[in-house]
Order: sequence, then C-alpha cells, then structure tokens
Amino acid sequence: MSGRLALIGLGPGDARYVTPQAEAALAAADALYGYGPYLDRVAPRPQQTRHPSDNREEGARAGAALARAAEGARVALVSGGDPGVFAMAAAVCEAIEAGPPAWRDLDVEIVPGVTAMLAVAARVGAPLGHDFCVLSLSDNLKPWSLVERRLAAAAEGGFVLAIYNPVSRARPLQLGTAFAELRRHLPAATPVVFGRAVGRADESIAVTTLADADGVPADMATLVIVGSAETRLVPRAGRNPLVYTPRSAQGVSA
Amino acid sequence: MSGRLALIGLGPGDARYVTPQAEAALAAADALYGYGPYLDRVAPRPQQTRHPSDNREEGARAGAALARAAEGARVALVSGGDPGVFAMAAAVCEAIEAGPPAWRDLDVEIVPGVTAMLAVAARVGAPLGHDFCVLSLSDNLKPWSLVERRLAAAAEGGFVLAIYNPVSRARPLQLGTAFAELRRHLPAATPVVFGRAVGRADESIAVTTLADADGVPADMATLVIVGSAETRLVPRAGRNPLVYTPRSAQGVSA
Repeated sequence: MSGRLALIGLGPGDARYVTPQAEAALAAADALYGYGPYLDRVAPRPQQTRHPSDNREEGARAGAALARAAEGARVALVSGGDPGVFAMAAAVCEAIEAGPPAWRDLDVEIVPGVTAMLAVAARVGAPLGHDFCVLSLSDNLKPWSLVERRLAAAAEGGFVLAIYNPVSRARPLQLGTAFAELRRHLPAATPVVFGRAVGRADESIAVTTLADADGVPADMATLVIVGSAETRLVPRAGRNPLVYTPRSAQGVSA
Repeated sequence: MSGRLALIGLGPGDARYVTPQAEAALAAADALYGYGPYLDRVAPRPQQTRHPSDNREEGARAGAALARAAEGARVALVSGGDPGVFAMAAAVCEAIEAGPPAWRDLDVEIVPGVTAMLAVAARVGAPLGHDFCVLSLSDNLKPWSLVERRLAAAAEGGFVLAIYNPVSRARPLQLGTAFAELRRHLPAATPVVFGRAVGRADESIAVTTLADADGVPADMATLVIVGSAETRLVPRAGRNPLVYTPRSAQGVSA
C-alpha cells in the first residue's frame, strides 16, 4: 500500500470557495491534518481521523502528515486560501528535503485555492489589475531590513502591493512602519484597501488612502492592498468606491 | 427591474477548478459574455443567451456587458483564471469610470478564481512560497522600458517572479529579452518553471534553469515562474523535482 499526501487550499472563507478538486481530495482522505480553525471548516466524515494543530507549528505539522502518509495512509493537509502562498506547501517541501529519502517517493498532490488577495481585490474592483508584488510583513523568518528593502523596491518599481500577515500580537507596530516607508515613495492619496475575514460572517472591508491608513485597525486575518500611483477610485453613491489599477501604465510612479 | 453584472473567474482549466460561488453566479445569469474559448467551458442552459467575443476586445466586451446589465439583465462575464489578474475586472472598472453615470449604480459582483500562477506553482511544489512579484510581459499597454525596470526591481529585491503573457505572435522575442535582463541579476542556476495549459488536457510542465530557459517553447497559454536566488530544487526519482522557495530568507540575492 502506498501512501499519499494532498495539500488542499480551502479558499478564504466558507464552502462557496472550495473547488470540486478540493472536495474530491478531502473525500478521498483517511486522515486530515491542519491548523484547527481551517480543519473546522471541513465537514466530518466517518472513518476519517482529524489531527488539528496550532498556528505556529507548520514544520511539525508537515512532518506529522508526511510520516502518516509514509505509513501508507491517504493524508489531507488543509490550508486556508492557497497552500502555495504563505501557507503549508513550502513547509512540506522543506520537510521532504530534510526528511527520510522515502518521503521523496510519496505521491504529493497540491490543490490550489483562492488566496486572500484575490478575494479582497474582488470585493473592491480590480486593484491587482496590473503588475503587483506580494509580500509577507512577518519578520519571524526574515530580517526586517529585507522587508523594508522589498517595500521600497515594490514602490519604486510602480508595483501594486498585496501585504499578508500585516500585524500580530508580537508585531503590533510593523504595519505602521511599513506605511511610513511607503509614504517616502508614493503619493499621500494612494488608495489602500483593508480586507478582513473576507468570505466569512464577520467580513469587513475598508478603503482609505496611504495618508490615513494608520487609522484603520488590522490583525492577522487582514490582507492589505496598497495601490500604485496609477491606482484609481471610481466613486459610487451609497457604496464603497471601485478601486482599480488600469491595464495600461506609463510608469509615472518612479 | 434592476440589472446586475457578475464577473466570474473560471480558474485555469476544467470544471474541477470552478468554485460553487462561480457555478451559482453562472446559473443565475440571463446572458453570458466572454472570450469564446472561456465561454465554451460553460455548459449551455436554456433561456441563456451567449455572446462570445475575440481576445483583443476587452474594452468593447466590458461595454457590451455593462450596457446589457443596464437594460435590466442579469449578465455574467466570464474570465479564465481570476478576473482580477490580467483579466476582465480592470477593463470593466475602466468602462464604468468612462461610461454613463447609471453604470455606477449597477450591482457588480466579482467572483474570484484560481489564477494561473497558483495552478502552475501547485504542480511543482511551492515556488511562490515566499515574497513574489507578478508581471505581464505584454507591452501592448505599457512601454517595454517599464517592463525592464520592473524585472530589475523584482530581481534586485529578491522576489520570485510570476510572468503572465510571456509571448505572443506579435511579440516573439520579449521573453528571451526578459531572461537576458534577469541573468544580469540572478545566478545561472536559478530555477525556472514553464507551465502551459495547466488543468487542461494538453497541459505541460517544464522545470529548467535561467541559463537554459531560452530552450523551452512558450506561448500565450504559458505561465513562467522565475525563482529567486533562494529557490531550491528537491530531486525525486522518476518525477520532476520539487521546486520551492523557503519560508525563511536572509536576502542573499541582493
């Protein structure tokens, strides 16, 4: 009997975002692994074991799932959003590289999903409609100087910026520091979008400017999009404005 | 009767990638608009009219769909992948901004989907596992000098790079020019992934290096991922290597 591991992206919120490919991979599993709140999104099935773990245990979770697959089980490891974007796929690849040689022979299927930036962008228009950069603001695994260099490179290059992991309890000040760095490169009126818990019952969306962005609360469930100098607002009566980045660009921002 | 427009992402290939949210929006429509090959992916329903158009007609297609919605119809405009990433959402926002004021009062729902880079990344591991940039290589709507500046900014910033629209019949040489520019900033051994028609019957995946990337054919259905200096390969017997970018970074690439 040969085991296998499916890494499954559940999308940003409820079952509306779960693809048929993800549903099929969930249904085929003997054992489910994942961060507890993501596992809670998956309906229980008889004969499936469930192995929830904490948020900061990506490496241990990947190793446990791989070890179970190497024993012959059909294992599903679930991620919110897409497993390849600041989620479990990189942790699994790291574990395979460092682990027993037999792990390289496992069937590993990665099932993509709708990652948070796509869901937030869809709520407001098309802020990612032109070239953009995607950056985690966490400095748990990289030096803050590198974060700042990348913020500057993105802004100078005229890229829109999608920011994951903007804030945590251990890092309450970094988003403000990032906005201050970006103000050195971008106009004060640059649109900024905060999307929190998109696709869930407690979803909230805020559209503001880089000048006023410090006033909007954010947490680890928030995805922030900072426009380029070309990003535009279309006011609408009684609704949030549309926020979009035109398909054409002249490079005015650098 | 008040019309509405749903902009629907079908994902990169077949029905496995179509979310329940997208299915529901398709089922609720009176009229379907889209690039012909994308419309062909949608099963016909009685009482639905279908309005296919050509690839280069985004602005006209957006205007036609909005005009029909303004007449009171429930219109669905389909995109491959995600509508917000080099697809129809920006064209619709542009048309709303430039069009009759009544278009701003329409209900516009954008349904996100799995965009090509996520599907290609999932096929090979986790190349987008750390910070990355997303760039269209088309210079139909921006000067080539801006493309080159962004390639340099992405490479110098140590970002992985996902390249959309790498080649067309009118632009056969630009991908090679881009690789030459990137070789000025990145090691020759930097992993490069070509994913063509992922999720479709004629899917192909190639993993090579920046030094050898010119030898791999590409067309408009190809998505190219160029690693950073930190992107790694994990060899596997009898399969493509895993390609991944570690979650931790030291900024060695700049």
